[in-house]
Amino acid sequence: MELFLDCMPCMNRQVLEAARTATPDEESQARIMDRAALTLARRAEFSCAPAMAQAMHEIVRSVSGVADPYQAIKRRDLDAALGVEPLLWRFAASADDPLRAALKVAATGNVMDSAVFADLDITACVAEELERPFARCDLPELAADLVAARHVLVIGDNSGETVFDKVLLAALAAEGREVVYAVRGRPIINDATLAEARYAGVDAYATLMSSGTGAPGAILEDCTPEFVREFRDADLVISKGQGNYEALAGARRPVYFLLKAKCALIARRLDAAIGDYLLVRRDGS
Amino acid sequence: MELFLDCMPCMNRQVLEAARTATPDEESQARIMDRAALTLARRAEFSCAPAMAQAMHEIVRSVSGVADPYQAIKRRDLDAALGVEPLLWRFAASADDPLRAALKVAATGNVMDSAVFADLDITACVAEELERPFARCDLPELAADLVAARHVLVIGDNSGETVFDKVLLAALAAEGREVVYAVRGRPIINDATLAEARYAGVDAYATLMSSGTGAPGAILEDCTPEFVREFRDADLVISKGQGNYEALAGARRPVYFLLKAKCALIARRLDAAIGDYLLVRRDGS
Repeated sequence: MELFLDCMPCMNRQVLEAARTATPDEESQARIMDRAALTLARRAEFSCAPAMAQAMHEIVRSVSGVADPYQAIKRRDLDAALGVEPLLWRFAASADDPLRAALKVAATGNVMDSAVFADLDITACVAEELERPFARCDLPELAADLVAARHVLVIGDNSGETVFDKVLLAALAAEGREVVYAVRGRPIINDATLAEARYAGVDAYATLMSSGTGAPGAILEDCTPEFVREFRDADLVISKGQGNYEALAGARRPVYFLLKAKCALIARRLDAAIGDYLLVRRDGS
Repeated sequence: MELFLDCMPCMNRQVLEAARTATPDEESQARIMDRAALTLARRAEFSCAPAMAQAMHEIVRSVSGVADPYQAIKRRDLDAALGVEPLLWRFAASADDPLRAALKVAATGNVMDSAVFADLDITACVAEELERPFARCDLPELAADLVAARHVLVIGDNSGETVFDKVLLAALAAEGREVVYAVRGRPIINDATLAEARYAGVDAYATLMSSGTGAPGAILEDCTPEFVREFRDADLVISKGQGNYEALAGARRPVYFLLKAKCALIARRLDAAIGDYLLVRRDGS
């Protein structure tokens, strides 16, 4: 999905936040912002917002010398998510429709995104968010596709979310299905890499795989051949979060996008409102 | 006051809004945003946020070919302000402390700033805002300074606000004081120039003067010698709004800053919270 002009101020704000997360040195923060501005001016070179975000966060890493500025935040989010994990399993186990409930848990995990919700009171928020129904849920299509699916790929998003995703992975793994869970190839914002997925214990529920990209979205041109093959050949693909939606909205195969709409532009593209929980099937172009 | 890194995303957002106000042509909007990004990268060249804003809006004008993109918005704000004008005079006339009330009316006019409140329901909001007290009001100092003051300069801000300022100008003109009301020299965002001040009828209450600058703040190096002399020699100066505060916070003479704090940084500088109404005396450096 193309990069919108509206993404520019938001990108600029996120870089400033990342710069301050990476280093307390105001000179470095200023240097990051100046280089980020030059990158904003190269807008036309980027295929989608996650591609520009990757370049922006590379500036943060290179100027600050900090390879993973969000490491402590990721750990904090993971620990918070592990703290509410029992609630997530109970919610899914007690539901009338366990698959819908597992999808809702995984979608709710999408609020664990510190890049958007900087000071989230997680425990207070999760129970409330779990009760909010999907604004759109293409569950009948997903259930029908699952009947014949033997191999399912789930593309993860932020770190804390991986804990929530375990509930969905367990549901998908029923009936002997193979389930692969893909994460980023390198640290980027608070997104999950293999390290965070393992810390969350995801490997007990799915085969972990790196997509290879260091962008906050699975931009296929940037992913490993192994991931691209997995993406192409899986019987069913569930893509989590806005970044993966932006990267994969134009993909050639059917994809289920599971996310909370966090900005006006993405919401509009999905005929939804900001804050809506969505499971949307796209046939593929 | 120096330009903060936090001003960058906000500046970027304002330019996008201005670009869309100036032209529906998306190619032009994109060109404006790209040139604006290059200007963001020249951050260190600008003395304060209004200086950068001036350069940004010059890009909007030059790419769109529209000399005054906010003309219709200014007219709309002025007409809305003229619509509530009777309420403003009644509020001041019925107050126990007429000077404080007149200051409060003028400060409340600061919410007529479309650059910050894009879709304001003015009529609903003004009555409520008038009742909100000042968070800080250096009224004793102002009243004491007024005793000997024969010549008062008020530096205006946005267009709709000029209608509100009439109430303050009338109060200041009591006891035969000369009152000068300065406005921008050229159109910039929704700020008042001579045209808007005359449309509001300000010339019935004060001598109008152009500061000469096309920045959204009275940056002295950018103003006419006549204005700089007026600023230096007036017995008392009241500066309205954030833009003038940013431009004049380091001025060499005492200035009363009358404003509503609209962003976190300005609020922090003034030991206030966002949304606070303030009359703050600064002695001058």
